[in-house]
Amino acid sequence: MERHFDEELKELNKQLLKMSALVEEAISRSVEVLVERKDDLAKKVIKSDEAINMLEIEIDELCLRLLALHQPTAVDLRFITSVMKINSDLERIGDQAVNIVERSQEIIKQPPLKPLIDIPRLSSLAQRMVKDSIDALVNKDEALAREVCKRDDEVDNLNDQVFRELLTYMIQDPKTITRAVELILVGRHLERIADHATNIAEDVIYFLKGKTIKHHIENEKEWI
Amino acid sequence: MERHFDEELKELNKQLLKMSALVEEAISRSVEVLVERKDDLAKKVIKSDEAINMLEIEIDELCLRLLALHQPTAVDLRFITSVMKINSDLERIGDQAVNIVERSQEIIKQPPLKPLIDIPRLSSLAQRMVKDSIDALVNKDEALAREVCKRDDEVDNLNDQVFRELLTYMIQDPKTITRAVELILVGRHLERIADHATNIAEDVIYFLKGKTIKHHIENEKEWI
Repeated sequence: MERHFDEELKELNKQLLKMSALVEEAISRSVEVLVERKDDLAKKVIKSDEAINMLEIEIDELCLRLLALHQPTAVDLRFITSVMKINSDLERIGDQAVNIVERSQEIIKQPPLKPLIDIPRLSSLAQRMVKDSIDALVNKDEALAREVCKRDDEVDNLNDQVFRELLTYMIQDPKTITRAVELILVGRHLERIADHATNIAEDVIYFLKGKTIKHHIENEKEWI
Repeated sequence: MERHFDEELKELNKQLLKMSALVEEAISRSVEVLVERKDDLAKKVIKSDEAINMLEIEIDELCLRLLALHQPTAVDLRFITSVMKINSDLERIGDQAVNIVERSQEIIKQPPLKPLIDIPRLSSLAQRMVKDSIDALVNKDEALAREVCKRDDEVDNLNDQVFRELLTYMIQDPKTITRAVELILVGRHLERIADHATNIAEDVIYFLKGKTIKHHIENEKEWI
């Protein structure tokens, strides 16, 4: 029984890594559609989202099977329930990538508004946060999970900068309004991806420490 | 043991209803800050978000305790894991309400752009979706949960309308750009709330039927 459980846990880790890889690829491709103006890549992202959705269900069912058949306690219970939440965050990141693709398809119908520097940076930051949050889970690396949480501020600040710059464009030249608003919304989607990665990292820390660091209550509770 | 478990389940339902009530109030107050220009209400929403955050943790811990101590199977297992996900959606709806408040505080520093009709409508729709999704869970009402999922399109369409109207304002009068962009983002936050309510309703259906309707795969799988 025990060995079987360990094998299923390994399978769960493997599936989650696969899910994360698909999602990371979706993020980078979605911004490639925008920056490289590659409309043909859009279909690939939308297609891969179907695979992501199916995998979410598979992982969820694997978790429920593990809970029902092995009735784990303590750390194993925390791990499986954390994976159920993390899985749901990954799937929603996939949705955000599809949103970026849909906006990008509109944007690239028009001439470029400006060279895009900060949005690819935002995208790399967000994608890296997703990768590191899952690596932190798989490698039980608490320090890495904490670092991911910190990087969320960097993303927020960069997105505020993008937002303000695009507002300036609009005010100076109303012809840019439609494109600028679409780019602001792309920035928002990337910020949402970073938020999901932060949620994942918080769940990883909870799993590792058995206590929540959500909502900055860490200092109010006992902590080693 | 069994009776104790039933009592804890009742307690869980009670806490979840309390969470939902707090979140619904946060939504309606956040839009009141904007529409009635009530800056003093902003602090109340931000304060109540702390209570929502604490309650999220309490509910999560109650779920873990139920899983660890009673090792439920089948429908009870599905119920508790669904509540863990629903709880997380409710907390994120609370965050969206805080986002609306923060944007509204900026908007009401400036003169009104236009009479706000559609944004309060969006807010009522979204708030109602949250209420009904939780009622569907507590009353095991599958039909209501399905209705909530359908209403998501209504919210998306209304928000698209808000978006297009605000774009027109900006193009006609660039002085309105800052306010219009902020209002577009308020619309986005309300749309996100409706998305979370839809996620909740999907989880309710999954709990009741033991099958997922996520990602519209219902028709591909066997279904009664």
